[in-house]
Amino acid sequence: MSTRELVVLGTAAQVPTRHRHANGCFLSWDREGLLLDPGEGTQRQLILAGVAASRITRICVTHAHGDHCLGLPGVLQRLSLDQVAHPVELCFPAAAEGHIAALRKASAYHDTTDLRLRPVDGPGVVAVGEAWRLTARPLDHRIPTVGWRLEESPGRRLLPERLTAYGVAGPAVGRLLREGAVEIAGRRVTLEQVSVSRAGQRFAFVMDTRRCEAADALAEGVDLLVCEATFLDRDADLARRFGHLTAAQAAGLARDADARRLVLTHFSQRYGADERPFLDEARAIFGDVVAARDLLRVPVPARRAGHRDG
Amino acid sequence: MSTRELVVLGTAAQVPTRHRHANGCFLSWDREGLLLDPGEGTQRQLILAGVAASRITRICVTHAHGDHCLGLPGVLQRLSLDQVAHPVELCFPAAAEGHIAALRKASAYHDTTDLRLRPVDGPGVVAVGEAWRLTARPLDHRIPTVGWRLEESPGRRLLPERLTAYGVAGPAVGRLLREGAVEIAGRRVTLEQVSVSRAGQRFAFVMDTRRCEAADALAEGVDLLVCEATFLDRDADLARRFGHLTAAQAAGLARDADARRLVLTHFSQRYGADERPFLDEARAIFGDVVAARDLLRVPVPARRAGHRDG
Repeated sequence: MSTRELVVLGTAAQVPTRHRHANGCFLSWDREGLLLDPGEGTQRQLILAGVAASRITRICVTHAHGDHCLGLPGVLQRLSLDQVAHPVELCFPAAAEGHIAALRKASAYHDTTDLRLRPVDGPGVVAVGEAWRLTARPLDHRIPTVGWRLEESPGRRLLPERLTAYGVAGPAVGRLLREGAVEIAGRRVTLEQVSVSRAGQRFAFVMDTRRCEAADALAEGVDLLVCEATFLDRDADLARRFGHLTAAQAAGLARDADARRLVLTHFSQRYGADERPFLDEARAIFGDVVAARDLLRVPVPARRAGHRDG
Repeated sequence: MSTRELVVLGTAAQVPTRHRHANGCFLSWDREGLLLDPGEGTQRQLILAGVAASRITRICVTHAHGDHCLGLPGVLQRLSLDQVAHPVELCFPAAAEGHIAALRKASAYHDTTDLRLRPVDGPGVVAVGEAWRLTARPLDHRIPTVGWRLEESPGRRLLPERLTAYGVAGPAVGRLLREGAVEIAGRRVTLEQVSVSRAGQRFAFVMDTRRCEAADALAEGVDLLVCEATFLDRDADLARRFGHLTAAQAAGLARDADARRLVLTHFSQRYGADERPFLDEARAIFGDVVAARDLLRVPVPARRAGHRDG
């Protein structure tokens, strides 16, 4: 398994269909495992996707509509059954607190999970890890909803010609990266001398919203943007009315934000099983588009030297 | 669709597996539709089984363990989305009232269903229809649990030779059945004169229990017995410890109760995907055994003249 990849668990909007399981995604990000919007049945979709419950470090719920949260009780029960020992953070819009409490009391089980609640009541940083941070921003849906952005801390990109010039090779390279400096033939060489700044990888999850400034900010310069595309553009009036995006609007968001890869999901049942119309509509606006299918895996594109480091 | 049949929605115990969806059954019984123990994902299983939410007239939850109730919020939401106009009764052990309340508040949706709560706090009749009654009895599990029994009212079986003797034929037969008597050539003929008593069809749902008197009473003389068989008999100690039955014990219950057909379900994940061992174990004790598979349909056996009318 790639260390940074998206595992699609379900792709339906509002109600599951014969062809699409209820909404849900899992983001594998090094040692972090973000379970995003566990819709009903996520417990089993994780099994089918080969993702052990012990991989989950954080559960992020965008809002309290059923297709984004009804899988939570099953996942929580599974964490306890599997005796997952590490803490699991549950991040959600503060306004959903009552529903989250109900979801936690939905059935009888022996709860042993170290679950830590992280209600979000405005834009800001929700969690900070060793080399990343997770931020949230309120979106524009029918009920309080937040989107998520995961950012790797900026790093350094080594320049081979400088390494050669300074005589840094072999195990000394690793030491230089770890310690920031290394001594070569009696001379101190710093990381700054042999590298340039490199922006970290970025991921955003924009679900159930009209186009808004917060969606733009979440998506800004990300490597992977997972975005709802409930409707096609011919139903843009419905999208606006119900607080959703069309495939074209999602593609416009990705283009304007200078994202690198766009994953469309959360497709309305009204369009049937074929995601081709969503793909066609989005690709006319933005290049690298993937239409999510249940159990699809999408790697987070690796940072290239050429991509802007803004 | 046969007017009286069981539709198996899921067959797992405790946790779903790659091969088995979470627990759940739908019983089609003339105009009644009983949704029994909706485990997580029941909403989608109903779609896959071709059962419209509008077919549900009653939801019966045996107990508050997740595999028997976590599908409830999705089903309730679906009833509202589909604008189901008829009342739906929700029957459950009274001790589960807190979990039922939480399940109803698990997500945000526009609730328009005429849902009527029927907490059960002892053995007795839960509902009575035009020609049937539903009873419940507390079982012997780790938490308060009830089993269900649906009984058709006793009817009359017409005797063709008597009809001929009394000269009742054509439309007069229907009138006799509807009105209890009919006039033939100036002479009054009553239903009793041309028929014998016939016991109604019976169905029982015995889930998550040790063998007990209540289970025996629920299963007594039923045409179709749906019974949990979480374990194989080699693990009878585990079954006892966790308040469950083995396949052999389920078959013994069916045999002793003089049931006609036994459907085994709720299989522990420890035995893998193959239900053959459950079937073999039960068939050594009882003849007509079906091992449930997800989306299987099992007709309620028709009453035969020869079967006891007790």
